[in-house]
Amino acid sequence: MLTPRGQDFPRWYQDVVAKAELADNGPVRGTMVIRPYAYAIWERMQAELDRRIKAAGAQNAYFPLFIPESFLRREAEHVEGFSPELAVVTHGGGKELEEPVVVRPTSETVINSYFAKWIQSHRDLPLLVNQWANVVRWELRPRLFLRTSEFLWQEGHTAHASRAEARDYARRILNEVYEPFMVEVLALPVLTGRKTARERFAGAVNTLTCEAMMGDGKALQMGTSHELGQNFARAFDITFSDETGSQKHVWQTSWGVSTRMVGGLIMAHGDDAGLRLPPALAPIQVVVVLVRAEDGAAEAAAALRAELEAAGTRAALDDRVDMGFGRRSVEWELKGVPVRLEVGPRELAAGQVTLVRRDDGTKDPVVVTEAVRRVGVALDDAQGSLLEGARARREAATTDVGDADQALEAATGGFGRLAWAALGEEGEDRLAAKGVTVRCLHRRDGTVPETGDEPELVAVVARAY
Amino acid sequence: MLTPRGQDFPRWYQDVVAKAELADNGPVRGTMVIRPYAYAIWERMQAELDRRIKAAGAQNAYFPLFIPESFLRREAEHVEGFSPELAVVTHGGGKELEEPVVVRPTSETVINSYFAKWIQSHRDLPLLVNQWANVVRWELRPRLFLRTSEFLWQEGHTAHASRAEARDYARRILNEVYEPFMVEVLALPVLTGRKTARERFAGAVNTLTCEAMMGDGKALQMGTSHELGQNFARAFDITFSDETGSQKHVWQTSWGVSTRMVGGLIMAHGDDAGLRLPPALAPIQVVVVLVRAEDGAAEAAAALRAELEAAGTRAALDDRVDMGFGRRSVEWELKGVPVRLEVGPRELAAGQVTLVRRDDGTKDPVVVTEAVRRVGVALDDAQGSLLEGARARREAATTDVGDADQALEAATGGFGRLAWAALGEEGEDRLAAKGVTVRCLHRRDGTVPETGDEPELVAVVARAY
Repeated sequence: MLTPRGQDFPRWYQDVVAKAELADNGPVRGTMVIRPYAYAIWERMQAELDRRIKAAGAQNAYFPLFIPESFLRREAEHVEGFSPELAVVTHGGGKELEEPVVVRPTSETVINSYFAKWIQSHRDLPLLVNQWANVVRWELRPRLFLRTSEFLWQEGHTAHASRAEARDYARRILNEVYEPFMVEVLALPVLTGRKTARERFAGAVNTLTCEAMMGDGKALQMGTSHELGQNFARAFDITFSDETGSQKHVWQTSWGVSTRMVGGLIMAHGDDAGLRLPPALAPIQVVVVLVRAEDGAAEAAAALRAELEAAGTRAALDDRVDMGFGRRSVEWELKGVPVRLEVGPRELAAGQVTLVRRDDGTKDPVVVTEAVRRVGVALDDAQGSLLEGARARREAATTDVGDADQALEAATGGFGRLAWAALGEEGEDRLAAKGVTVRCLHRRDGTVPETGDEPELVAVVARAY
Repeated sequence: MLTPRGQDFPRWYQDVVAKAELADNGPVRGTMVIRPYAYAIWERMQAELDRRIKAAGAQNAYFPLFIPESFLRREAEHVEGFSPELAVVTHGGGKELEEPVVVRPTSETVINSYFAKWIQSHRDLPLLVNQWANVVRWELRPRLFLRTSEFLWQEGHTAHASRAEARDYARRILNEVYEPFMVEVLALPVLTGRKTARERFAGAVNTLTCEAMMGDGKALQMGTSHELGQNFARAFDITFSDETGSQKHVWQTSWGVSTRMVGGLIMAHGDDAGLRLPPALAPIQVVVVLVRAEDGAAEAAAALRAELEAAGTRAALDDRVDMGFGRRSVEWELKGVPVRLEVGPRELAAGQVTLVRRDDGTKDPVVVTEAVRRVGVALDDAQGSLLEGARARREAATTDVGDADQALEAATGGFGRLAWAALGEEGEDRLAAKGVTVRCLHRRDGTVPETGDEPELVAVVARAY
């Protein structure tokens, strides 16, 4: 049904997206329709992230979709980075506009124009704002979820009184919001580190990143957190009076994750049967599948679903007995539902149902009265085992190398890891010419360095989506 | 501080929006920045509505922002209605586009182009989809929340096998989702009914509406639910094979509510001191205000806030004792927080705190150990009393009249109510020429008629936002 992953990974990805009814191409090139099942996955991501973002002190707000072209030009690197990707509105309300407006590719410029109005004193700092929104970046080589002309994301924007505070907050978002969310909820063992100057966000002085390995050994940037220094503060004149009454520019951060994470989830955990969703994220954690509606099986299945929901599990009931049992099993596997509980009259007569785990395919008879507890155990196990599986695959596909040539070779099927000092910006350029990039720089112990100048930094290199 | 409502209602509204830090004008004319406090109100609206929409069987999804111009032209009335309000993207990725795309003013056309692909058989029906999104309708006379060039909303789109099913679903959304939400959560006693042909949505065969009275006696359309008949089904060729195998066009609905409701909330409940938020909606239901940090008052205030939160109340602590107590009280009144609990050392020595209700201004000493319970009672009372107050104001400002001339006069400061047979489409046109519209037609008992031809229908007329 699906193209095997080993045969053609990009084709397998397209097949999963189409057949699990996750997304369709939009009518305008590069845009995307997010279908209900994928949108439910995104809503679960939003709920988990939103809670963590609010716990980090940021408040949600909403800024306009349309930005005057002139705003973008105020920060030189920023406009240079985004100009080629802009969608431009030239007509509104039946008339040609006096000044064309761009559809936001990101909101630094418009948000910072308001920060300049809202921030007066050190008492207004830190100002921590987040927005859930759509953004548009014209894509010439679109791929559903991974690169689309319009995507959904959250973008955080903050202003602080000092460089140290801004730096700490950018790290806090990376290591206390994004990384734990990705590890604990998405079951993705991300690497965290700094981007090199070459890979930095347009307008940032430092970009921190979470990088995951996909099933084909390529990297996916799952989220970034930027220190903006005072670049936008100067461009938009965002100043505050400090305790001594003198006027200073603020220090800023911005950070975001997007619907691209849905693509990462598919490519990191998926197998030849389709999606495998981590239970902590899955919109449906367990589906009770009625095999045949005989001898009280229908009632037992409905009762089990109700018990599971009462126990706080996201449960669904599949009682479509007019559809073949095999076809339904294939569909639930394709959709990556972590646990199936099969309820048939024959087993039920023996007081049993069958518990099937999507992560490892194990099938076990379970006593009916024990089913809810056993589902809970299976969900916990599956969450841990998906994470460990992804970690083991990443470790197996990561090679320690000594120079750029070896790094290139390592990047054919995974990550290469080498001393940043041994690669350097010159080596980085050579790799880039062959489509291999430095995904991040981290310390030997895997932690995020304070600066790019720390000695003994490790560079992780790979091909990337 | 605020312009009094009685002196200049529109100015009072602007003052509340600005001083309660609800919204700012965006840099592009007609757009809006929704500041954190108003966005928190919107998030609470979203959460309450989303739950009800899902309970009505609809699933969330996401469709593209950009729609090819040609899609809009497929339904004649629809394009005629929306053409004057469109924003048009002519350039993308640095090039002029071959076909200009419009920024969605509503999504019937793009969603129905997918319904045509997804619906094959009667087994695919009903298809019930909802989306939370931004839409753009170029506004020449913008007013924050009420009329903005970009606004946030939910738009539901459904397809059914029969006209009766579609009609029932449009009514279900109106009477089981929108109306209970507005009455129970927003404390707004909305009238529900049908729009006349003149006021119908562009492309619909019937529009149902929820109408509320604002503080100045004008009406605000709070939400609409449309029967689309087979207009879009024919334009986009959405067909299904029924049980007998013959191909039929589907019957459809669409329905939406928007950030305009925030404006309605301000104008319906607000008074000369600012917002008054119904407790069921308020992001902060109770604020514990520390008067002075002496004699254990700070600890007592923090403990009270924790107890309130443990009891499931959305509570905040105001311990900004370096700011004047009066100024802080004015701020919380402006923001419409339903209950303040004032904690000062003097009262605390007597085992008491002061409970102040925002809805009616009552101030009562309360025994500390009773405070959490008393807050709960006050919140319940305030919810009911805001609803009853709004209902009483609407009744007092509604006049039963006999003809169009009397209706015009009634509409100078409230609603006019008369037999639809006595007004008729001719009378409706005469009113419209003077800026007065038929807000809805309902039965004598206030219920929604099945058709516009029922005898004894009542027309409610008013000036409207």
